[in-house]
Amino acid sequence: MKQILLIGAGRSASSLIKYLKAHSEQDGYRLIIGDKESNNLQGKYPNCQIIPFDIAETTKASELIQESSLVISMLPAGLHFEVAKICADLGTSLLTASYVTDEIRNLNTQFKKHGKLCLMEMGLDPGIDHMSAMKVLDKIKSEGHRLTSFETFTGGLLAENNRVDNPWGYKFTWNPRNVVLAGTGSVKFIQEGRYKYIPYHRLFKRTEVIHIPGYGYFEGYANRDSLKYLDLYNLRGIRTLYRGTLRRPGFCKAWDIFVQLGATDDSYQMEHVDEMTHRQFLNSFLSYNPSDSVELKLAHYMNLSRDSEEMYKIKHLGLFEEELVGLKEGTPAQILEHILKKSWTLSPEDRDMIVMWHKFKYQNQANETKEIQSSMIILGDEEDTAMAKSVGLPLGIVGRLILKEGLSMTGVHIPTSEEIYTPLLEQLNKMGFEFTETEVQ
Amino acid sequence: MKQILLIGAGRSASSLIKYLKAHSEQDGYRLIIGDKESNNLQGKYPNCQIIPFDIAETTKASELIQESSLVISMLPAGLHFEVAKICADLGTSLLTASYVTDEIRNLNTQFKKHGKLCLMEMGLDPGIDHMSAMKVLDKIKSEGHRLTSFETFTGGLLAENNRVDNPWGYKFTWNPRNVVLAGTGSVKFIQEGRYKYIPYHRLFKRTEVIHIPGYGYFEGYANRDSLKYLDLYNLRGIRTLYRGTLRRPGFCKAWDIFVQLGATDDSYQMEHVDEMTHRQFLNSFLSYNPSDSVELKLAHYMNLSRDSEEMYKIKHLGLFEEELVGLKEGTPAQILEHILKKSWTLSPEDRDMIVMWHKFKYQNQANETKEIQSSMIILGDEEDTAMAKSVGLPLGIVGRLILKEGLSMTGVHIPTSEEIYTPLLEQLNKMGFEFTETEVQ
Repeated sequence: MKQILLIGAGRSASSLIKYLKAHSEQDGYRLIIGDKESNNLQGKYPNCQIIPFDIAETTKASELIQESSLVISMLPAGLHFEVAKICADLGTSLLTASYVTDEIRNLNTQFKKHGKLCLMEMGLDPGIDHMSAMKVLDKIKSEGHRLTSFETFTGGLLAENNRVDNPWGYKFTWNPRNVVLAGTGSVKFIQEGRYKYIPYHRLFKRTEVIHIPGYGYFEGYANRDSLKYLDLYNLRGIRTLYRGTLRRPGFCKAWDIFVQLGATDDSYQMEHVDEMTHRQFLNSFLSYNPSDSVELKLAHYMNLSRDSEEMYKIKHLGLFEEELVGLKEGTPAQILEHILKKSWTLSPEDRDMIVMWHKFKYQNQANETKEIQSSMIILGDEEDTAMAKSVGLPLGIVGRLILKEGLSMTGVHIPTSEEIYTPLLEQLNKMGFEFTETEVQ
Repeated sequence: MKQILLIGAGRSASSLIKYLKAHSEQDGYRLIIGDKESNNLQGKYPNCQIIPFDIAETTKASELIQESSLVISMLPAGLHFEVAKICADLGTSLLTASYVTDEIRNLNTQFKKHGKLCLMEMGLDPGIDHMSAMKVLDKIKSEGHRLTSFETFTGGLLAENNRVDNPWGYKFTWNPRNVVLAGTGSVKFIQEGRYKYIPYHRLFKRTEVIHIPGYGYFEGYANRDSLKYLDLYNLRGIRTLYRGTLRRPGFCKAWDIFVQLGATDDSYQMEHVDEMTHRQFLNSFLSYNPSDSVELKLAHYMNLSRDSEEMYKIKHLGLFEEELVGLKEGTPAQILEHILKKSWTLSPEDRDMIVMWHKFKYQNQANETKEIQSSMIILGDEEDTAMAKSVGLPLGIVGRLILKEGLSMTGVHIPTSEEIYTPLLEQLNKMGFEFTETEVQ
């Protein structure tokens, strides 16, 4: 009997586990779930076989991987090279939702030698973004048009936008650390044939406004390095190429306060964190002045009025309170993450939402400029967050496909080729992942 | 006969070479100068023995070091570990003006075993700053006072301040790359008992004004990590500790434009550098907008009026010109350095100037608050820049001292102990390195 080994059963694996379990009998495979904290998971997935799994225990991990037909890893991205190395050695196909790294790309020949596939970036972003974009890009090219511009944005947000309760319109629906560090480093993209660069400390000031009919306005900031998609998507010669992240309007201006303060810096340990309060954390980035309040110093430093929306957002997070942070040590970024988690952790009533939006421009053979916009909205429900569905289900669908029919490709890949995106988007569409395409005149 | 081997005879070694040569007969040592480009140097130092030296040719370098009593290295800082390793192996004392690194500190036991000294940070800053500060700090403590605050600033500047010719009042008098990258990373200091942190992108906005009687006003920005001087200077418990760099007033606000643009980023390669003009370099950090000029976009982005002093400073550097940069490739920082060198390279008529300023506060036994300010100005002349004098002469003086009388200390050190600073400051004083001390009431 074929066996799928799913490793890492954290919150965002819930949809994937239920999906794989639901199809195991019909497809004829066994599902094994491996997790460091297997004891705590049995209640959540009562019909599943859950065993202890730690990638650091190499011998035991290798045995489990050897007896499996397919490994799907939902472990943190940093652990995927270890998993991939074992899979490449033993000749077991591997699926993950994380970015492919140079280290993993170097395992290509080994996977190929075994005739096996290592498919990375198979979640939401990266994942569904690749597939849905490549489908339109390939179509535009195959019809003989000349692509001139491609912009794409994705965001994980709160579905309701109740600004009394949560003026940010945001809670963590994905790795909080990645949210705090989002945009660090430099941003590169192309606009109208010109290479453009934005340093981190200007990123959240240079936002774009995106309108999605039926869902309103969003703001987007640029993702790190759009230029690498020139080759990944085969777009050399394009005049505009921009990838970004979506937030509710007003989020970026307030988040920029943390960036400007240096509160998202992850490069050094702060002093005396064990005795630090939220207010002191904030004050440590402000000038010394014994006669002014932290509130006034912040407003002045950031050039804000004291009753501005941004000051209210900072207050809402409790940053002016003399409440202990509650960490023994930490970098500014770690401390900020800890404080944000106090307000930004999803409660059972909270519903999240995924928004994905693409804009393509091309010149047709009559040299007319055409534009296509394509968008997808996914809503969370009582059982699963929109994030868990969007990250997990593509992995589940392609996993079943590999076990049932196989794929012709071997080696290390991301889902940019038709062989993957056509069946995947078809299945996803049936499950409610619908893209609305509009031709803009 | 004793032999001093001086390696690295670049521009800033000129004072040191002349000083060592002038005293060789009287003191009874031979001076050998080793440099990669020994051929070009004979004309400059006609009476000196100049030989080819490359630290990468380890066998030859070791032979030369073995037959020397003392090595003084003026090589780039990154090469000092290689030199120090050979000296530690062979048991030869070493002097440099560069910061001690952990790698070099680990050679401590080896130097001690041979009874030899590796004295680092023996130039201007680090160097004279350590010695002149420790002298006052030790005096305050030995008189039974309680030190509460120590601030120190050093700057290498143009002596004349002709704002028609050079609105920046600045040219490179030290490693240009270090000037372009100055302040990158995060800044830490203590003010009135509070730990304070400034991110790089705010550093040049948070300057201090320093007044030096007879020389006028300067502006200072904080150096990277003042906290490490808590232990180096034995200052635990101090309420204010701040180290900084001095510039002419107005420099920092204009320099901040480069920081805000991201033009000092050294972390990525820009695209198509070979065809890039100054103006395009600037434009690549600005938003795309076909109807606005680069000048207007810059002024608007930086919130400056078009006829502001800062815009004039940028124009003075030729940054709005369609002149080719002249590099094949480069990071933003490398390209900016290359453009700046076109304007900021010292001409034979230019005279430079070193400014060092300390402020100490303490409470005496009657619990009165006292303040001492101490400053030193060094001017360049036709023969040597102020920078070459200030970096080279301390090395020369301590080198002679070691050969003539020896020092009791062995192992890896920086010049913070009385055994070094007392004779050194005395000699420096005789050569015009005078500190003016004022008690401020």
